[in-house]
Amino acid sequence: MEFAWNEIAFTMAKDLEKTIMPLFGTKKAGENVGTNVSGDVTKYIDRVAEDIIIRHLKPLSVNIVSEEVGEIDNGSDYTVVVDPLDGSYNFSVGIPIFAFSFAVFKEKEPVYGAIYEFFPKAFYEAIPRKGAYLNGRPIHVSDPQPGKEAISFYTRGRALGLVNKVKRVRVLGAIAVEMAYTAKGSLDGVFDIRNYVRPTDIAAGVMLVREAGGIVTDEGGKPLELELSAEVNTNVIAAANERILRIILEALENEP
Amino acid sequence: MEFAWNEIAFTMAKDLEKTIMPLFGTKKAGENVGTNVSGDVTKYIDRVAEDIIIRHLKPLSVNIVSEEVGEIDNGSDYTVVVDPLDGSYNFSVGIPIFAFSFAVFKEKEPVYGAIYEFFPKAFYEAIPRKGAYLNGRPIHVSDPQPGKEAISFYTRGRALGLVNKVKRVRVLGAIAVEMAYTAKGSLDGVFDIRNYVRPTDIAAGVMLVREAGGIVTDEGGKPLELELSAEVNTNVIAAANERILRIILEALENEP
Repeated sequence: MEFAWNEIAFTMAKDLEKTIMPLFGTKKAGENVGTNVSGDVTKYIDRVAEDIIIRHLKPLSVNIVSEEVGEIDNGSDYTVVVDPLDGSYNFSVGIPIFAFSFAVFKEKEPVYGAIYEFFPKAFYEAIPRKGAYLNGRPIHVSDPQPGKEAISFYTRGRALGLVNKVKRVRVLGAIAVEMAYTAKGSLDGVFDIRNYVRPTDIAAGVMLVREAGGIVTDEGGKPLELELSAEVNTNVIAAANERILRIILEALENEP
Repeated sequence: MEFAWNEIAFTMAKDLEKTIMPLFGTKKAGENVGTNVSGDVTKYIDRVAEDIIIRHLKPLSVNIVSEEVGEIDNGSDYTVVVDPLDGSYNFSVGIPIFAFSFAVFKEKEPVYGAIYEFFPKAFYEAIPRKGAYLNGRPIHVSDPQPGKEAISFYTRGRALGLVNKVKRVRVLGAIAVEMAYTAKGSLDGVFDIRNYVRPTDIAAGVMLVREAGGIVTDEGGKPLELELSAEVNTNVIAAANERILRIILEALENEP
């Protein structure tokens, strides 16, 4: 069976938008309502968002990997790896940086990726071997002049010397969004080496950065291989190009 | 002469919104078009935004302090300290965190402050001795449990140990917005000790944080006294309460 993944993703994003946006920055959104398969706290808004996504995906009988429900194996060739709301802390306290992240694999090969940023209504798509798009227009990673880099990072205290090696630091609190920004050139790179990120958070971002011409590696600089699981943790470096990757790897080597 | 500052600020914010939002994330927005009174590069979008603000303020014959034009002394009792677009780098690269910042003083006494965040359409107001408001509703600083703090900071490499002392770090790249977030409790504090910030960037934010119950000091912990000038640089610490302020000051003392 074939699916029109772009339509499916867009329909889900718009349905999510309608339901969650009235809850932006509200106390209700941030209430704890339980714990997920990995033992992390589930916020009300996470549950609301996932319910919508599961409702859309169920009739397709595909395999599902999502943060709250974990892994649902329907014996399909297709596996959808989804984060209904990346940046749900930002959402609940009223910081307008959060997104829906959606990635499809066929027998572990990437088939389609989408990230939807609700406030700017930015719909990013990755189509393997065909490119990365923002609202239908091709996007590419940046090529910043040395000394002009803008980077985002999460290191639990490591490699902080980077603050003085790049022009700008941003810490936006939503890795899917920061990978989308790397793909469109708003940031020159983002990395998280806290062994904290889940494949659900970055699956679409990995496709997007690669299709936009960037590089995605593990903490040692090797191409990142994503496990399609809701429970493992991973490290990730996304960089606009080899030079940015080297800056990041050197900072990590010098301050381990 | 008396002015309805809230109406003036809101009208300006909405006029700005109409003109600048179509330029969000465009190359045009980020083009360099000259330098301002302090020798900083002026982006196209900074100029467009300031032109709108000056057009609104001119008929009022008040004194104006703004980043690009500098100081216009009209011999009025009132001085308006304005940043037409705080976070213009974010704006030009397509990161949805930026705001209009507007503060009014009468003989150096604060009279009214407003910050307008364009994407969430969040209109923050500070009314001296009467409180802080978001879209008309009272807002207050947070009171986070120890170990749950969320802080934003700009230190050019100093006090990075804070990363391990608080739960969350955000670096959003627009100090007026980050002060508004501190006022409404989305962040527990923000500080910039790079001797980089201008009074235009923070004048409204200072009023807002104080009226929301927070503390605003210089880098030594003394109440910040703002010079109504477009050309001086200043340091600033905004904190939800004394405990947060102490955490910040201790980090600065230990890593000078």
